[in-house]
Amino acid sequence: MSNIRRSSRRQILRMTAALGGGLVAQRQKLLAWDTPGKLGAPLGPYGERSPFEKAVRWHRDSKTPETGSCFTPLQASVGTITPSSLHYERHHAGIPTIDPSQHRLVIHGMVDRPLSLTMAEIQRLPSITRTLVLECGGNSAGEWAAKTGPDVQRSYGLVSCSEWTGVPLATLLAEVGVKAGASWVIAEGADACRMERSIPLSKAMDNTLLAYGQNGEMIRPSQGYPLRLINPGWEGNTNVKWLHSLKLTNQAYMARDETSKYSDLMPDGKARIFTYRMEAKSVITFPSGGQTLPGVGLYELTGLAWSGSGKIERVEITTDGGRTWTAAQLQEPRLPIALTRFRMPWRFDGREAVIASRAIDETGYIQPSREDLIAARGMNSIYHFNGTKFWRVQADGTVTNVDA
Amino acid sequence: MSNIRRSSRRQILRMTAALGGGLVAQRQKLLAWDTPGKLGAPLGPYGERSPFEKAVRWHRDSKTPETGSCFTPLQASVGTITPSSLHYERHHAGIPTIDPSQHRLVIHGMVDRPLSLTMAEIQRLPSITRTLVLECGGNSAGEWAAKTGPDVQRSYGLVSCSEWTGVPLATLLAEVGVKAGASWVIAEGADACRMERSIPLSKAMDNTLLAYGQNGEMIRPSQGYPLRLINPGWEGNTNVKWLHSLKLTNQAYMARDETSKYSDLMPDGKARIFTYRMEAKSVITFPSGGQTLPGVGLYELTGLAWSGSGKIERVEITTDGGRTWTAAQLQEPRLPIALTRFRMPWRFDGREAVIASRAIDETGYIQPSREDLIAARGMNSIYHFNGTKFWRVQADGTVTNVDA
Repeated sequence: MSNIRRSSRRQILRMTAALGGGLVAQRQKLLAWDTPGKLGAPLGPYGERSPFEKAVRWHRDSKTPETGSCFTPLQASVGTITPSSLHYERHHAGIPTIDPSQHRLVIHGMVDRPLSLTMAEIQRLPSITRTLVLECGGNSAGEWAAKTGPDVQRSYGLVSCSEWTGVPLATLLAEVGVKAGASWVIAEGADACRMERSIPLSKAMDNTLLAYGQNGEMIRPSQGYPLRLINPGWEGNTNVKWLHSLKLTNQAYMARDETSKYSDLMPDGKARIFTYRMEAKSVITFPSGGQTLPGVGLYELTGLAWSGSGKIERVEITTDGGRTWTAAQLQEPRLPIALTRFRMPWRFDGREAVIASRAIDETGYIQPSREDLIAARGMNSIYHFNGTKFWRVQADGTVTNVDA
Repeated sequence: MSNIRRSSRRQILRMTAALGGGLVAQRQKLLAWDTPGKLGAPLGPYGERSPFEKAVRWHRDSKTPETGSCFTPLQASVGTITPSSLHYERHHAGIPTIDPSQHRLVIHGMVDRPLSLTMAEIQRLPSITRTLVLECGGNSAGEWAAKTGPDVQRSYGLVSCSEWTGVPLATLLAEVGVKAGASWVIAEGADACRMERSIPLSKAMDNTLLAYGQNGEMIRPSQGYPLRLINPGWEGNTNVKWLHSLKLTNQAYMARDETSKYSDLMPDGKARIFTYRMEAKSVITFPSGGQTLPGVGLYELTGLAWSGSGKIERVEITTDGGRTWTAAQLQEPRLPIALTRFRMPWRFDGREAVIASRAIDETGYIQPSREDLIAARGMNSIYHFNGTKFWRVQADGTVTNVDA
């Protein structure tokens, strides 16, 4: 505790210094407050959110709503966990309704002892819990061409963070006995399109998880109920939902979602494939596009940073369009491959400000500028955009997406 | 990452050794699986849980359901976070419906500059995020007399853990200027009974939080929407919900909930009051009362430990009624004053087993036995029971509460 307390005190002192005593923009006359004249609502079995809270996932209107993306309302996020009900979605054939008592996971192919497991059997096995970010490989894809959504939800909302609980895949691979020569695990979901991805055996042995728990309860249907493959740090598409089959092979499947999709076309016409890892990235969530500052004064500028390679080491913020950068405060504990909340007190003085963040992870990787990213990869890519993101705070307090 | 990976590998090796190769109780014939013949449900704005998941909070039938307790289904918990919808409740006058645009926090009394703040003003201030356990002072009260609920929900379910986000109270106390001689902060809720608790100024300056965020979104109404006082490590009742007033005084208020209630009557007829801190405690959630093991074989024995004084350092498990104790695995990161998940592979051999856990925190405090606790405090207490908790696994696999 003593370290925590010292750190907390230091943080408060830093804040107070930064605030310079002008903590509240406008002092108000003390208000008399009304006490409710009657009892409130009774106790209940399930606590829904307040009717005053309206933030929901957003998706494009579509004639085929079983395929597409649903974006997390990052502008309304606080802390680091994403509520399970607001976790981003990316589906290809809709959300199957699965009875967990009927669900099976089959492990087969190049193994000594093929196995079919019920959910009850899986949940008896030694489990672990990890807080992990998931990001769609196509998150912020519009930024490549600077034709993106007007706000942080529609431009960056395909990223979310949950506490996942499940069984290390390595435990079950040891049980089935992987045959010599096997080098890939083909994961298949129980959705109508049987979505498949090829996972290298080395990853599967390292830290892949068979997750059944999310944020303290069973995974929600839109996140893969009752079983999801979790590949820490890898693009969302590899985290196969409604997992019902793992097949050991000696080659990748070259499935639709690893050739036609989720590959990166380079300027020379060749494509990078199996670009699994999501590199360091960050975005300011307040102030961000579509929000309005009610006036000059002190605000908390805040956002989220993450890296598929480990912990976030540092986040820098510019409020002058990239000329100068200042280190933000990072919320502890900084967990590897999880959303890290960053914050910086900032005084809006009524002049236009162009703001952005950039993340540096524990490997020393620095989130690139959009220009540097395009110089390296060209403009053909759809996936893996992680350039720095600028918002324009206009003199009247309205905030716009400079790339929209 | 390298440390994490090494740690993860070590854990897997430990598991595999513990399992001794008998990972799955019963091998099954590989099943052919059905693929859904039609598209699943479409994308949607808000992802509810599966209709197959039934765990909800439990409360006693009552003619006054605006006062009472609602218990978290710990038997269905996984990981360490409690879903906000299942967080335990303890209300005294029902749940008020508060429009956040109308809500005010007034800070007054012995201060130089009284202040009335809107929620928008509070949310502009420098904030922090902390994952913290909350436990009702009366959790497991039935254990004093060994007359308790049959299962872990009804006997131990007044404990939950959330990621809270808000403003350190110290920041606002610096802003209002606390007058010399002030030593207490009287916190009052906006519920119909205006519930009040007296908080020593030293605590308020140390780590009290004005929380508006819970698990990544705004606090839910049953947890204090839009603003809750959070006193890390202190009994739930001091974490005043629907907070609308903080008054600085030079004495405690001796309110109903700190004299008639939430005080501890000792054998000599005197009462301990202001016994704020929740000491180290733990409970096994699987197997626990009301559950049934489907047969002999390997299981993951698991539960939750916490301490109001800091981190959990060690959890020990007995499966022979307390004769021998073995260290459980503790899920990292172990955060101070948060639920820590513990686990141990355990082979049920078909003979009766009496199981319990005991927690040791980073201060060296050891969770006492029920007998030692009663020897020290007698049997008059209602609050602050933290004795070790035994479940009986019967030969047929059914599990009962030895104290029910």
